[in-house]
Amino acid sequence: MTVNLKEPELLSPVKGIRLAAGASGIKKNGATDLVVIEIADGANCSAVFTQNRFRAAPVLISEIHLAKTSPRLLLINSGNANAGTGEDGHNNAIRTCQLAAAASACNYDEVLPFSTGVIGEALPVDCFEEALPNIVNTLDEDNWLLAARGIMTTDTIAKASTRSITVDGTVVTVTGIAKGSGMIKPNMATMLAYIATDASIQSDLLDESLKAAVESSFNSITVDGDTSTNDSCVLIATGQSGVPEITTKNEGYQLFCEALQEIMQELAQAIVRDAEGVTKFVEINVNNASSYDDAKTVAYTVAHSPLVKTALFASDPNWGRILAAVGRAEISQLDVDALSIYLGDVCIVQNGGRAATYTEADGQRVMSEEEITITIDMSAGYEQATVWTSDLSYDYVKINAEYRT
Amino acid sequence: MTVNLKEPELLSPVKGIRLAAGASGIKKNGATDLVVIEIADGANCSAVFTQNRFRAAPVLISEIHLAKTSPRLLLINSGNANAGTGEDGHNNAIRTCQLAAAASACNYDEVLPFSTGVIGEALPVDCFEEALPNIVNTLDEDNWLLAARGIMTTDTIAKASTRSITVDGTVVTVTGIAKGSGMIKPNMATMLAYIATDASIQSDLLDESLKAAVESSFNSITVDGDTSTNDSCVLIATGQSGVPEITTKNEGYQLFCEALQEIMQELAQAIVRDAEGVTKFVEINVNNASSYDDAKTVAYTVAHSPLVKTALFASDPNWGRILAAVGRAEISQLDVDALSIYLGDVCIVQNGGRAATYTEADGQRVMSEEEITITIDMSAGYEQATVWTSDLSYDYVKINAEYRT
Repeated sequence: MTVNLKEPELLSPVKGIRLAAGASGIKKNGATDLVVIEIADGANCSAVFTQNRFRAAPVLISEIHLAKTSPRLLLINSGNANAGTGEDGHNNAIRTCQLAAAASACNYDEVLPFSTGVIGEALPVDCFEEALPNIVNTLDEDNWLLAARGIMTTDTIAKASTRSITVDGTVVTVTGIAKGSGMIKPNMATMLAYIATDASIQSDLLDESLKAAVESSFNSITVDGDTSTNDSCVLIATGQSGVPEITTKNEGYQLFCEALQEIMQELAQAIVRDAEGVTKFVEINVNNASSYDDAKTVAYTVAHSPLVKTALFASDPNWGRILAAVGRAEISQLDVDALSIYLGDVCIVQNGGRAATYTEADGQRVMSEEEITITIDMSAGYEQATVWTSDLSYDYVKINAEYRT
Repeated sequence: MTVNLKEPELLSPVKGIRLAAGASGIKKNGATDLVVIEIADGANCSAVFTQNRFRAAPVLISEIHLAKTSPRLLLINSGNANAGTGEDGHNNAIRTCQLAAAASACNYDEVLPFSTGVIGEALPVDCFEEALPNIVNTLDEDNWLLAARGIMTTDTIAKASTRSITVDGTVVTVTGIAKGSGMIKPNMATMLAYIATDASIQSDLLDESLKAAVESSFNSITVDGDTSTNDSCVLIATGQSGVPEITTKNEGYQLFCEALQEIMQELAQAIVRDAEGVTKFVEINVNNASSYDDAKTVAYTVAHSPLVKTALFASDPNWGRILAAVGRAEISQLDVDALSIYLGDVCIVQNGGRAATYTEADGQRVMSEEEITITIDMSAGYEQATVWTSDLSYDYVKINAEYRT
């Protein structure tokens, strides 16, 4: 199941971006598994990649290619992560860039490769060789939803978001897609997100906008605490909207950053709403912390607790588990006597102990909802962080026990 | 189920220790829930407590009492943790000490209180008041197993271990009990372990022996990464064996430390073998690390990964998940190209990639066992750490979703 997540509709195309997808045979069940995103000449491109020390071959190569030249093609396969595959994996990733370049008449180092799926199995390059020419022939600016479907693995619903803003009287579009529902605790980026705009934005400002939006979106979610080897997030500004290049933090840039953050939060939350085995969508707010890092550490410690997650699955207001998780968070100082915890609008812990006004019935009412907010007030400062997570259900175990069967 | 864990047999009594247990009504199902351990005059006692910032009222009081005087009585209840209970919880814990002191003619600050069970509910002091006089009347040195059963919560089997060593021609006994199967990632100690010896050991040496043994036993296991609010481990040396007091690190002290470590590792492993929902007992060795802390961080990161744990449950040699978990471990340096990973005796990763000799059939053979060893060779130094853990099964979710129903 998913929590309040619908199939995306009506994605605005972005001038300068064409997409295509097809079934190449990497996925044994004949599902769409190969996506190409073509970027028109003159675009700026920014990207962030996983901080897992085992970075997949395509991640390493995308980083090298991005540093050398402006990319013209994103080549994305699902069904195989090409991670933990050593030198063969590296050579295979380069070979797929060469095949994509041949099919679309660009240089191989203008191709950024991305892979998602099982770790440690050889990438079937033959599938690319056979499928790419036909897929490239179907490139179209209206294929965003098709591409969103083509990058899915255990996802049950495609994830996409779109915004239009008006800058200097001209409409600027920002559209993005993402995938992911397990091995989700992004660190710098998440498993495959692609956002494009037809605005023209100077490179440094584009980088800055991406990093700021990533921190409060993909870097603020978790399903199972497991950071993937392949996480990547790419932001493209094609510059084809007709609005002059943004080179300062002017009003247009602020509008763009707001739209970008909205899209990326929506995509990040969509990943949690479609988390493996999800039955609850949970927002954890940590307020009045002495630092942002402390707030985020506390929020993630609660979000990763298997005991909190199983209580959420059971709709059981067993708030002692939240308190125990806060207490083990690795922060330098914690004044337990000053701490308050709220479940939705119900105060459960005040001054470090059970709130005098708390009743089990009130707790039960909040826990029975599909969307639950946990708020932890540290009374230690003025910093705040929010993390979104899912519960831990039978189906999470089932999906991950049967993943390769 | 449990993994290779049997009901303990033939526990050697320890001269100077008498135990008793009974059903006081704290547990609604009429199970044994109140344990008293009486310590003869002249014993030395050492203890370590949870590092969770939310320390339960009995933990705080035990620490104060232990600092003031030599304890004569350990008072342990299951069914209620008396944690997150504020000032009332504090007063209740003191009141139970007073009741136990009255029933056994010692001072209330010679009583160390311990509680385990649900967090955040008021401790029913009435149960203590009614049951204690009768329980104290049944104190006996042969009641170790009864006490081991009395401290159980979600445990399915009592945990106990015993050793006899010969020091200066005289037999010295060490016997211990423990409980725990969920909210297990001890930090300095684990949920309720009590070990006693009739050796006579000088206080500082007793402390040192406990801390060393805790590090390689209770502080080296995890079920779900959740450190409890009530973890406590107590070591008592009654001095009634007839062997003169140990005041230097002589041969007798070495023998004692070895026996203590064996007992504590057996108890710690028993907790993992009886972990909530367990179907696999897993040992994770990290070898050739640059520091002990790095080795332990890597071992715990793998041990806590829900994806590794569900693959273990499924007997699926999906080793990419082990590699991804190692890659996200929070250590300062990791040379992925030097790393090797073994599943049992099968090399799965060599030089950071799939080993040339690896076959899925070999991996499957190891993963199908009930006891599995994962060895990670960091090639970065000479330090080593071992962590024991369980898998993540449907039953873990079931037990924790239904815990309070």
